[in-house]
Formats: sequence, C-alpha cells, structure tokens
Amino acid sequence: MTKPAYEALTPRTLPQRLGTLPALTDRVGPPDGWDVTEVGDGNLNLVFIVRGDAGAAVVKQALPYVRLVGESWPLPLKRSFFEYHALIREEARDPGAVPEVFHFDEDQALIVMEYLDRHIILRQGLIQARRYDGLGRMLGRFCARTLFRGSDLSMKAPEKKADVALFCGNVELCDITENLIFSDPYFDAEMNRHTAGLDAAVARLRADLALKVAAQELKLDFTTRAETLLHGDLHTGSVMVADDGDYRVIDPEFAFYGPMGFDIGMLISNFLMAYMSQPGHESEPGDRATYQDWLLAATDDIWSAFAEAFSRLWHEERRGILYQATLYEDQGHHQAADVALARRLDAIWRDALGFCGVEMHRRILGLAHNADFETISDEARRATCEARALALGTAAIHGRDSISDMGALLELARRTGTEDHL
Amino acid sequence: MTKPAYEALTPRTLPQRLGTLPALTDRVGPPDGWDVTEVGDGNLNLVFIVRGDAGAAVVKQALPYVRLVGESWPLPLKRSFFEYHALIREEARDPGAVPEVFHFDEDQALIVMEYLDRHIILRQGLIQARRYDGLGRMLGRFCARTLFRGSDLSMKAPEKKADVALFCGNVELCDITENLIFSDPYFDAEMNRHTAGLDAAVARLRADLALKVAAQELKLDFTTRAETLLHGDLHTGSVMVADDGDYRVIDPEFAFYGPMGFDIGMLISNFLMAYMSQPGHESEPGDRATYQDWLLAATDDIWSAFAEAFSRLWHEERRGILYQATLYEDQGHHQAADVALARRLDAIWRDALGFCGVEMHRRILGLAHNADFETISDEARRATCEARALALGTAAIHGRDSISDMGALLELARRTGTEDHL
Repeated sequence: MTKPAYEALTPRTLPQRLGTLPALTDRVGPPDGWDVTEVGDGNLNLVFIVRGDAGAAVVKQALPYVRLVGESWPLPLKRSFFEYHALIREEARDPGAVPEVFHFDEDQALIVMEYLDRHIILRQGLIQARRYDGLGRMLGRFCARTLFRGSDLSMKAPEKKADVALFCGNVELCDITENLIFSDPYFDAEMNRHTAGLDAAVARLRADLALKVAAQELKLDFTTRAETLLHGDLHTGSVMVADDGDYRVIDPEFAFYGPMGFDIGMLISNFLMAYMSQPGHESEPGDRATYQDWLLAATDDIWSAFAEAFSRLWHEERRGILYQATLYEDQGHHQAADVALARRLDAIWRDALGFCGVEMHRRILGLAHNADFETISDEARRATCEARALALGTAAIHGRDSISDMGALLELARRTGTEDHL
Repeated sequence: MTKPAYEALTPRTLPQRLGTLPALTDRVGPPDGWDVTEVGDGNLNLVFIVRGDAGAAVVKQALPYVRLVGESWPLPLKRSFFEYHALIREEARDPGAVPEVFHFDEDQALIVMEYLDRHIILRQGLIQARRYDGLGRMLGRFCARTLFRGSDLSMKAPEKKADVALFCGNVELCDITENLIFSDPYFDAEMNRHTAGLDAAVARLRADLALKVAAQELKLDFTTRAETLLHGDLHTGSVMVADDGDYRVIDPEFAFYGPMGFDIGMLISNFLMAYMSQPGHESEPGDRATYQDWLLAATDDIWSAFAEAFSRLWHEERRGILYQATLYEDQGHHQAADVALARRLDAIWRDALGFCGVEMHRRILGLAHNADFETISDEARRATCEARALALGTAAIHGRDSISDMGALLELARRTGTEDHL
C-alpha cells in the first residue's frame, strides 16, 4: 500500500482522514463525535481544534505556501519536520514548557499535540493589559535551558554536529528570517509596508549607514554562528498563557542553529513593543501606565531569570567540549570559570540587544507586523507609538557596546516612550 | 559483484590493485613498469608515489587510525571523503592552487592525484633557509579566494547550508583540532610533551587564567562560527613549493566550516614559528638574520595579499545573502559597503591573531610539534627559541584588540625574538 499523497485537511475531511489515529481517538474519543474547527491565525499553517467526547487535541498542518501571502509564495512542507524535531528537543530540555506532542506524520506535514484549552496567545493578553505572574521568569528559564542544553557547552560534539547538519535543511524558513528581519526593513523592499505617518522616520532610518552595516553584521551572526538550537521565532505570538500560571512556548518551525542572543533578544523586543504600544490602547491618557510598569518588570525578569538559570547550568551541567572542567575546576581555577561565564553572558547580552533592535524594525517596516500596533486603529497614535519603537530599536543596535545591562535598556525604553520620534 | 572491503595498500599490492585504473594508467603507463614508494611523513595517512614509463602520480590513502600514534587511536576513513570534497572546492575557487585530483575511491579511502615532482614541503624549505618569490602573496590570495567564495558572501544560501551539513560529518578530525589546539596545551593533558628547559615558561602560561579563558573563546569560535569552508590545517607542512615559483596547498582533510580568521591565523603562526626557530639553525650567530627578514616580509605579504584579494572579491563577487548590493550599491551607499568591508577585515584580523597564538602554543606544548623546532638538536637552543614563540603566542592572543595590524605584529615578533623568555 502506498502512502496517500499530501493533502491539506479541512474540518470536513479531518475526521475521515484521522479518525483511526490512536493519538487522537485515545484522547478525543471516537470520530463520530468530533467537532473540528480551524483556528489558525498565524502566518503559515492550518491549525485545527478537534473536540470529542473524551477531550480535545490540536492538529497543526503545514501548507505548501505562506498562508499570509498565498500560493504565490511556496514554502516546503518539511518545516513541519523541523517544528516536530524542535518541539521534542525543547520538551527534553525544559520539560513542560511546550505542548505535548502526540503524533507526527511527516508526509502529511502534520503534528497532533496537546490542546491548551484555557490558554490564549500572550500577545492578545498583553494588548488586553492582562498580567501573568512569573511569566518573565518562565520565559528566561526556557531560554537558558534550551539554549545551554542545545549547545557545545552541554551536548556531545558528534551529536551536536549531527543536529546542526539536520537543521541546515530548514533553508526556506531561514531565508524568511534572513531577508525579512535583517535586510528588507533597511531598504525599500517590495513586501515592506508601514504606517503612513512614519515616512520621515523611515527615511532617517534608511539613511543611517552605520545601522545598515550593523544589521548585516547581525545577519552574518545569524547565518554563521551555530551556537545552539534556536526556537527561531520567539515572539509574544509564540507563547500561550493561562491565568492559572501555565505558560507554553509554541511554533518552533523556524528552528535553526544560531547565536544564543537571538531568541532572547527577540523575546525582549516583543515585550518592549508591547510596552511602546500601550498608549495606543489607552481610553484615558496614562491609564495603562501601571501596566507598562508591569511589562518592564516582566522584561527585566526575562533577563535576570535567564542569567540566573544559565549560570546554574554553567556550574552544574557544563559537560560539553567548551570550557571543560579539566581546564578549570580540576585545576582549581574556579575563578577563571566564573570570569568565562561572565564574559559569555555579556556577549549574549550584546547580541540580544542587536537582535532586539532589528526585530523592532522589521515588525514596523517589514512584511509581518505585530497586532500590538496593528490593533491601534487611530493611525496618528499608531505612528507615534511605532516611531518610538523604531528609535528604541536603533538605539539598541547602536548601543550594543554601551547599554551595559537590562536596567539601562529599560531606562532607555522609558525615556524613548515619552519622546516624539516622528 | 560486491566491492572489495577496505584494505590498506602497500608498495607491493598497489600495482595489482590499481593497475587497471585509467586515472593511473593514463598518466603513469602500464602497471608492469611501475615503481612504487611510500613517502608519507605526515601524521595520519599513507602516501605513495607511483612512477611508470609515461609519468608519475600520487596515491594517498587514509588509515583507520592516527599514523603518528598507532592503532590505539582509531580515526575514520571518511576523512578521505572530506579531503576529496575540500580539494575539488579549493580547485574551483582558486584554480591551480592545489594538486589536480584524478580519481577518488570512497570505499578504499584513496585519492589519486598529481605528483608534484619538483616540489618539497615548504617547512623543509624554510628550515633550509630557502626563499620563494611571491609565496606569501600566493598563500594570501589562496586564503582570500577560498574563504570568500566558500561563504555566505558568495554562495547561494541553500548550497552553503547543504555544504555546512556535509562537513559537519568530519567530527573526528574536528575533535583533534578542538582538543589538541584549544585545550590540551593549557593544562597537563596526557598527550602533551615539551622541551625540558621550558618547564618554568609552561607553568607561567598555564597559570595565566585570562589566557585560558581566551583560548576557550577561540574554541567556541572554531566550533560554532560556520563562516566558510576552512582548509583546517593550513601550516607550512601543508604547502608544497618548487624553486620555479609553483606553490600548492595540500592535505585539507581537516576541512570544516569555521571562522575566516582560522586558516590565515594558522598560516601566519607557522611563518612566525619558522622565524623564531632560525637562531636554532645558525652555524654562526646572526647568519640567518637576513633570512629572518625574508620570512617576516613573506608573512607581511600573506596578509596584504589576503586583504587586497578579499577587497577585490567584495566589490566584484558579493552575490550571497550577506551585505547584498540591493542594500548598498543599489541605494548609492558605496561608502557603507566600504565601511562594512573594513570592519569585516578588522574582525578577521583579530580572529587571526587569536588563532595564530593558540597554534604556536600547541606546536610547542601539545602532541604535534613542528620540525622547525624539533630539528634543533641542541635542547637549550631549542628551548630558547620555543620560549620566545610561546611568549609571542600569548601576546597575540591577549593583543587581539590592541595589535592593530600586521606591522605591529611583525614588530612584536622582532622584539620577542631577541628576548629571553625562559
């Protein structure tokens, strides 16, 4: 029997095509009681919620094109393979941080996974000014655990090199990152768009030649520095949150071996964009001020939890080929190991600042915008907020060597958030 | 018919086993007239010269262990596959710079290639104080062409990522580099050895904690920064030279995607070690002084030819995903492209300084020493020369941000070469 060729699911065909799959029937019940809805609101894929007598599950299926753009932009189904492999690695490295995977079908490019019934997308929560206790700390820990445990600091060298080779196949999704984040925002690329009132700010940004050089240096870092397995798209739309404190990271189909600062920089960037967007959602001037404080505190938590967890792993799980104990602890050179750790964290911080900056720029000038800003219906207010974020992004990139810590970055965000950058 | 299993060749079995191979008979003539000698003096492989009525060729075959150490250190035959793939890429990127490849047999791990009849190993030539016009310039150009054309500055992204994945398989040879160059010299590792008189200098070096941190940062750079396909072992024993000015680079079995500064740093390091070793070969004090001047001039040539050729390629062949013309030249931002180039060259220079330093250390303290020093039979003189090289290596690593150019490095080498570092 040959396998059926790939075919996109629909709510109608899903029960007949997947109705005998134990991964679903075990959890959801028999298919004749299934209720299937398609809820994918992302840029790339189909996402179905399958509800039945016994429970619910999610079926996520890749489409052979970019959903956001349409069939004119083909995108290979194998991204589902990379998402699956990233999910199971993330689960192993930070248990409970991602949805549980029940089944993977490579030919149909589909993953059956846990349905997070009481969760919403974090970005929606931030737009609604909801608070999530411990969220920043959970995300910082997630970064530390996945980034450390996916690197030469932890993995055996043959295993790490084989994994680098595997994820080198994720060419097309890397291409999206490479172009849309690092290049398109810095010139008048075809798929760009921006809020009308930003024209002058955009012209200034694109005339900043040092910025253009820095953005390409960051692109070089992304394409060449295979330090660890990245999530690759760790923004607030890739996090699901419940009010009871259960937080999960989803959608790692952009996974690739890259620099440690990438995920954490992108995450910080999206929190700071949430911060900058708040005045656009106010009913009365200042009524989101205390929520903005919470957002900055959460951003602070991301980095401090990251640094704390990374330091603990450095001391307890440094079993890879880098900075091996034979050279340090076994020689009584504990201080040198601490110096090396501090230098590593500093390097990751500087990288994160740069990636934070380019992510801000592309979300305002490129193809894929953030709902944080997009849902501000008043164009003038939106432009005001976006111009501040652009300025903060530029300052973060130029300040890679001078913004010494998270405190300084948050102070800069506060100041920029009150200025006129139009 | 199944393929015969791998079997190491001998001068006796070679004609019967390879006597029907057109790659050999076409060039050497019929096997009954063959004269076969094994000349491998490297650390890893068998090398045969096959001479016949019509000419000669080389057959290089991998052994399933490290020749230098013996069967107790197994080493996979597939390194021959990586050597072959590196050779054909080097030939494409800098035509004529490597021996011509006539045949590759993956199962027997053998490569049939051009016999360089009038050539000797460069290291032997330098020990004999021979001069080679244009050598530094040829080697600098080789680095520029192979490093630029093997990177994201030139290659298509899918092709480059597939090639990174391919060379990720060269695990065991990378392991040699990772341990023997970046770690073993900095502690009392089992396979280390050094000249007796160096004990005090070695103790000082191993107590330099900042040096130990820097060496691991360089190791991190080597294992993670997949910037370009490296030769991976570009010392003066991997270059063959003829008095008529024909120079070739051989033995790229350590090929791996790594930082651009690695090959060029290793090359500079080996020229500077040749410089430091000269007093050990003098009959009369000072009688190698003008030859030492020639060595420094050749070292200078390596970098200036590299920078010149790299700059030309930057302007003429920058067709990869990095620093694309759409962002620079097409916007009239030629100056930004020049700034970006200058920053790239500066980064490569700083990296090269670091790799230059660790290579000096491992050649004096680690497993694989250089004939430049080893052939100095007077132990005290050898120790004097080696101690200076150790000091220069340390200064190069610590001076990554302060030794601004090749002139400064050469000045440092001159000064260190007259000092007492025992």
